[in-house]
Amino acid sequence: MPGQRLARGTGRHLRDLGFAVLEEFVPARGLRVDVIALGPKGEIWIVECKSGRADFTSDRKWTGYLDWCDRFFWAVDADFPEGLLPPETGLILADAWDAEIVRMGPEARLASARRTALMRGFARQAAWRLQALRDPGVAALLPSQPG
Amino acid sequence: MPGQRLARGTGRHLRDLGFAVLEEFVPARGLRVDVIALGPKGEIWIVECKSGRADFTSDRKWTGYLDWCDRFFWAVDADFPEGLLPPETGLILADAWDAEIVRMGPEARLASARRTALMRGFARQAAWRLQALRDPGVAALLPSQPG
Repeated sequence: MPGQRLARGTGRHLRDLGFAVLEEFVPARGLRVDVIALGPKGEIWIVECKSGRADFTSDRKWTGYLDWCDRFFWAVDADFPEGLLPPETGLILADAWDAEIVRMGPEARLASARRTALMRGFARQAAWRLQALRDPGVAALLPSQPG
Repeated sequence: MPGQRLARGTGRHLRDLGFAVLEEFVPARGLRVDVIALGPKGEIWIVECKSGRADFTSDRKWTGYLDWCDRFFWAVDADFPEGLLPPETGLILADAWDAEIVRMGPEARLASARRTALMRGFARQAAWRLQALRDPGVAALLPSQPG
């Protein structure tokens, strides 16, 4: 199942758990995560969605994501060869409509300054995307999105 | 001009200044602001949009907003009787398409814990609304938005 559909189901489940989610988020230059989730107490989780074996084995960046979240998860569908995934990471079983957490990612708490910076970036990205959807004219006015 | 149109023009201008904006935000129980804006350094501004004299004189809550932002502004159109507005507040002249800051609201910096809580609430609200627009199915799944 393509990653975007896994992201949708994952987002629904995380919302159900009280998290707000944002897809395709850039925590730092050169990194782009499939799903970032912000919990009621400011918890930050990152979820990478993998459509199959090749998608996972070609990913050379995922260890870089660990420094930008409190917990890290993979989201895969029921056909994915789970044995490939490192046991010390979280695991979410997803389809396009829902998901469940099979294994909680171990917690490695972010430093306070980084958490604040991530939350600020999350807030600004989410609001800009929402504004672009609600007021399509805004996209035409500006050559590119502010940094 | 109705408040929503003033909010749109204000949002465009604030975006141009590097702020991300969110309409109809609840900073605390019983308060609902027309526009909240989050700047690149975490600055939080609140803008109340007033369509005319009656809209302003019937507002008994605005002084309560001052405690939830670094700067406070009114947004009004060119026909609004500006003299009604307290001089120690910011003033934005807006239409539906754009706006300009006529008088900067004086700065009263938020305490750090409140700024963090506002930023978290802003981030979560914006992401939930974005998710509901991108995945309408999510709204049907859940009876109400998480708090």
